[in-house]
Formats: sequence, C-alpha cells, structure tokens
Amino acid sequence: MTDAGPRKRIVLLGSTGSIGRSTLDVIRHYPGLFDVVALAAHSNVELLAEQMREFNPGYVAVADPGAARRLQAAVPGAAIGSGPESLEEAAALDADVVLCAMVGAAGLSPLLAAIDKGTRVALANKEPLVMAGDLVMRRAAARGAEVLPVDSEHNAIFQCMHGHDASTVSRIHLTASGGPFYGRPREALEKVTPAEATRHPTWDMGVKISVDSATLMNKGLEVIEAVWLFGMPENRIDVIIHPQSVIHSMVEFSDGHILAHMGVTDMRFPILFALTYPERVECPMNRLDLTVLPNLSFAAPDFSEFPCLALAREAAAEGGTAPAILNASNEVAVAAFCAGRLPFLRISEVVAGARAACGAAPAGGLAEIMAADAMARRKAEELIREFGNG
Amino acid sequence: MTDAGPRKRIVLLGSTGSIGRSTLDVIRHYPGLFDVVALAAHSNVELLAEQMREFNPGYVAVADPGAARRLQAAVPGAAIGSGPESLEEAAALDADVVLCAMVGAAGLSPLLAAIDKGTRVALANKEPLVMAGDLVMRRAAARGAEVLPVDSEHNAIFQCMHGHDASTVSRIHLTASGGPFYGRPREALEKVTPAEATRHPTWDMGVKISVDSATLMNKGLEVIEAVWLFGMPENRIDVIIHPQSVIHSMVEFSDGHILAHMGVTDMRFPILFALTYPERVECPMNRLDLTVLPNLSFAAPDFSEFPCLALAREAAAEGGTAPAILNASNEVAVAAFCAGRLPFLRISEVVAGARAACGAAPAGGLAEIMAADAMARRKAEELIREFGNG
Repeated sequence: MTDAGPRKRIVLLGSTGSIGRSTLDVIRHYPGLFDVVALAAHSNVELLAEQMREFNPGYVAVADPGAARRLQAAVPGAAIGSGPESLEEAAALDADVVLCAMVGAAGLSPLLAAIDKGTRVALANKEPLVMAGDLVMRRAAARGAEVLPVDSEHNAIFQCMHGHDASTVSRIHLTASGGPFYGRPREALEKVTPAEATRHPTWDMGVKISVDSATLMNKGLEVIEAVWLFGMPENRIDVIIHPQSVIHSMVEFSDGHILAHMGVTDMRFPILFALTYPERVECPMNRLDLTVLPNLSFAAPDFSEFPCLALAREAAAEGGTAPAILNASNEVAVAAFCAGRLPFLRISEVVAGARAACGAAPAGGLAEIMAADAMARRKAEELIREFGNG
Repeated sequence: MTDAGPRKRIVLLGSTGSIGRSTLDVIRHYPGLFDVVALAAHSNVELLAEQMREFNPGYVAVADPGAARRLQAAVPGAAIGSGPESLEEAAALDADVVLCAMVGAAGLSPLLAAIDKGTRVALANKEPLVMAGDLVMRRAAARGAEVLPVDSEHNAIFQCMHGHDASTVSRIHLTASGGPFYGRPREALEKVTPAEATRHPTWDMGVKISVDSATLMNKGLEVIEAVWLFGMPENRIDVIIHPQSVIHSMVEFSDGHILAHMGVTDMRFPILFALTYPERVECPMNRLDLTVLPNLSFAAPDFSEFPCLALAREAAAEGGTAPAILNASNEVAVAAFCAGRLPFLRISEVVAGARAACGAAPAGGLAEIMAADAMARRKAEELIREFGNG
C-alpha cells in the first residue's frame, strides 16, 4: 500500500470516543492513504466540529438530535444527519472500510447497515457480536462483508489464524491482564469507586470498557465475541492471566504448535492493521522493543472473586438471547455504578439477577434480540432500585 | 489428514541421529499416515537393522561402505546401498517428503538430489544452507521443490510467516537460549570439557549442534540459514536472548505487529509439522501448558565472550564462499574439541584463522563451494596442530 494507490475510503462510527480518536490519529499519520468519507458520534459537538475541520468528511451523523442541531449551527452548510438512523446512513455510504467504534448496543444497527451494503467492517465495538453474533456473522457471510476485529485480543487471534486452515485450530487462548483488581480479596472490592475502576494497568481505554475490565466482564464478552468471530465453541476458548499485556492472545493448532501475537499496548496498531488490511504499511508509532520487555508471566485464572466471566460463559453456552440479556443488564449496571448508584460488587449481581429473571429464548431475528435487550434493561433497573433500598 | 487418505511416503536421511530417531518416533505414533520409503545413515548398523525391522523401508543407504557390508550380512536380501552416492539414490526415490537430517556438510549432495527430483524437503541439517544457500534455494525454486525448515527457530518463523505477504516482514527475531555458558566470563570457559558443552539447558540434541550451541556458532549458522530460507538480509535478522526457549522465534511486520511461535522444547513438534504440511494432525505428545510456564525473559545479547556469532554475521554479509569456509572450519574445530585436541575457546580462533587465511570468492557452483570447504578444512587442521604445539 503506497501513496500511489487509490486512497482507502473510511467511515468512522464513534469518532469522538477513545477508539475513534485513535483512528483519526492513525489516519493523520498517512496523509496520502485515507479519505474520511463520514464521521459519526453521539453528541460531542465541540470535538466533532474540530474533527470536521481537520478531516473534511462528506457527511457527519450525530445520534443525539439536539447535538446535531448545535453542530449544524456551528458548521452551517455541512451535511449533517441527526438521530440514530443517520448513523445507519453513514454506515451505508460507499466506503472501503466502516470502522465501528460506537459504545454499547447502539452500534448494532449501523454495523448491520454496513454489512448489508457488503462493506468491510472493522469492528471495535464488541456488543453487537455479543448480542447478535449469529445474526451478524451469518448476514456478513451472505453479503460478502468481511468483519475484521479491532479489539486487541481478537485482532491478535485474527492475525495468528490468517493464512492457516481454521479447521486446524484446536484452542484460542485469550490473554487477560486481570484488570486493576485481579488478585484482591472480595472485601477490598466493596468500596471501589468509578475512578479506581477506570484506572487500567496497561491499556488506556474508554470508561465502559474500563469498568468491564475491572469486573472481568470484558473478558467474558471477549469470549462470546471470539465464539462468533472465529466459529469456535466457548469451551475451546481459554482465558489466561498475563498481567504484562505484551502477548495479546494466542492460537493453538491441533498439532500443538502455538502462534502468539505480541505488540505494544496501543490501540493504534490493530486499528492500522484493520484500515490497511490485507496490506500493511510502515508504522510510525513506537514499536515493541524486545530487549526491554518485562518478564512475561502467565497464570491459570482464579475467577472466584470475579463472577462476571462465569456469567458470560454460561450465557455463551446457553446461546439464543442469553448473551443479549447479559450484555444489556451489564450496560445498565455499569452505568449505575459510574453514576454512583450501585456498588462495584453489585454489578455482577444485577447481571445474574437479570439473567435469572429473563429466561433466554432462541435468538431469532433482530426484533427478538432487541426485545430481550429491553426486557433485561428494565429488569436491571428494577434490581438496581431494589439494591438501593436494601 | 486422516487415516483414510493416501499415506505420505517419507525418505529419512540420517535416521540414526537425534532428529532421525525423533522422526521415526513421530511416524510410530501414526500407523496409518506414513510409509517409510527409505532410510539412510552413516554407519550405525545395529540401530539401522532395528529400524529396518520396525519400519520396513524399501531401501537403506549406508554412507560408510564397511558398515553397509555388515548391515547386508545382518539383513540378507534387503536392498542396501553403500557409499555417499547411495544417499543421493535414496533422496531421489519417489516420495512426498525427504527429511534431511544428516549431520554436517555430508547432507548437501543428498539434499540437492531430492530437490532435483522436485520433492518437498524437510530440512533439519543447517550446513547445506549455510554452505550453499543461494545455490540450494535457487535450484529448489527452479525445480518447484519446497524447502520446509525443521530446525525449531526456522520452523517457528515459517509458521509465523505462513499466509502473510513476505514483503511485509520487516525483521526476524531469532531467539537464543544462550547455550550452557551464556553469561559466564571468558576465564570460566577455558577449561570447558566436551561433556559440559553438550549439556544443553533446554534442548536434547546431537553432539555437534550442542557444541555449536555452547559457542553460539549455532545461532550464527541459524542467521545464515534464515537469510536463505526467508530471503532476508543478515542485518534484518536479530538475535535475542530468551533462556526459557518457550518462544521459538518471532516475525515482525512492517506495521509493528509481531507474531511469535511458542511450544515445548521437543523436536518432534516441528518434525510432525514438516511431515504433515500443509495439513496438521492431532498431536499425541504433551503440549505446552500455558498455566505452568516459567516467566519468560528477554535480553539484548552480549556476545563479547562468544565471537562465533559475529564471525557468522561477517560471513553472511560477505557472502560467496565465506559461509562455507566458516562452516567447514567450524566442523573441524568442533570435532577436534570433542576429541580433546582443542580447547573450547580455540574453536572460534580456528574459525577466525581459517576465514582470514582462505579469502572468500563468489560462490559460483557446487565445485567452487566444495573447494572452499576443503581448503578451509585443511587450514583448520593446520591451525589446530599449531595451537596444539603452542
């Protein structure tokens, strides 16, 4: 891939979040390689306006209508869409890659719009696969839309499997830093504040994913994501504690050989990979220096104090709408924790309660999934209120 | 690859050595998968006779004529060839894979015979590529013969690169355990005995490769081997100390991503890979257990006490017959060390002396290479005698 080739047309959904900003930083490094066709975000008008000035997208979608009006006022004459449906419009534009970095369930509809168009998707948002992995992957296969994982673990697995016969993969080993609280006793977690939970030891991430990392729900969601991305049953996806986060995941083949992906903890690397795939370009960021690596340690996980991973595995094994219920109740619980309405240790209890209350059904189509999602959110809110009164 | 498919026909050159015996152990595990078309060895009549009874090869080549006669007497009626040319005959039989595990320069002619036949070669013998890498790889390309590396480091690199565009590889990182003496001061190496030098910390290997591992010449030869196998200049092949030998080598791509191969230190794994490639089969050997791994450490190499790696790099950079001179003088020096005729620290001095005395020329054809090899051996013997008198 060189400056001489055609520029890759990029649609970036979720441009004002952590992944979105890293994506624009990657694009900034390669003035000749990319065109930003469209940006989309929820409501951060100031940053969107700034990004528009720098990257000159042909279209900007703003999920929040009030924010869309403010942005239009700030940038008169620009093509600005408003509301969730404008994100689907952005996703369906002619593009080489749609990078999906919306947070939470809101990313599902735009993702499906890109897939329906047959566009390659770089997926940084794990909830769509968790909620509707079967639907997403089957539709992607039917429309010939490639789904490239951006999440560092899944990007690692994708690279390790690339060029190898998928039927020869016997196990996937997802590495887990353990988050900021791994190894602490349960008592020590009772008073955890949102600020503590979002201080991740090795990765600089958004708030939702940081809390999920602290509860280890993030690793559970990654197991479910891997089930769909790589067509691997949950019981052949292991989690291994690797606090240094240098090895980003591993693939074990039937004959016992293991390929591992290593790199720095900088999301710009998997983003660059996904934007340029199947080619690669010289990378201007600081690379991994093998000569100054810390010792790399690995340990069998002890998740007794972190029930979210087990909840996620159960949901993956049950299938149907179970992962959607898990995901929705977790989103609500994490939001309540961040708002100071729910203690840290209650997050898993809300999820477990919602799973128990909302029986899983076959996933069926998007309607069934969204109904399960809505039911789980209501149940989670109920539980949070109950806990608040308890 | 299943029992139902056609059996793979294997020619095994060097069946009585360490790699040869491991290869037969792999074949023993899969009664339905392989046919041993031919065995070849230097002179170990007893073991050859035993291997013939178990694996029933159609042809057996014995390099040493006296040993061939003894074997024929022991197994009357068997098709047994005698002398170095019988190894070329074995290599040129109809086969799916010729596994070349002869020790030293003796492996070159049989290797070329297999390549000329267009047969896939599994190469466990590094000297042919060191001596005549350009010739071997060009002839393999011309005849359409694949060369699969069996050496654990190069097998690792091969697997990491498989399916990826070779032009996107920016560096190769060869891991080195450092051998039994890495980190010791020069004084401590003066009295090293052959028994100490062949006690390798992580790999169970033959005598020649164990001594090369102790001098770090082995890593130097591996650098030269990698130059030819992967078409990578010497200055883009790094050596990194990794005493645990869990990561067998790494490939760094232009965009900063690194793929690493991990496995147990058991040569049967790369042998199995090479025998079944491009397929894989379930492996009956004990796999790497990630949960009980030691901490993995890495360090920039300090080779000040181990001049052989620098000598090898210089030979690689100079090209032509320089690596053949390096290799031949090293073989002679190692043999003298093992025979108690040369102190450990003099091995590198013999190599350096032979390199200085024998000016390198363009490699040309096999005749030029063999002439340089012979000249270097004479010069090395001279130096060993001089050192003995000094």
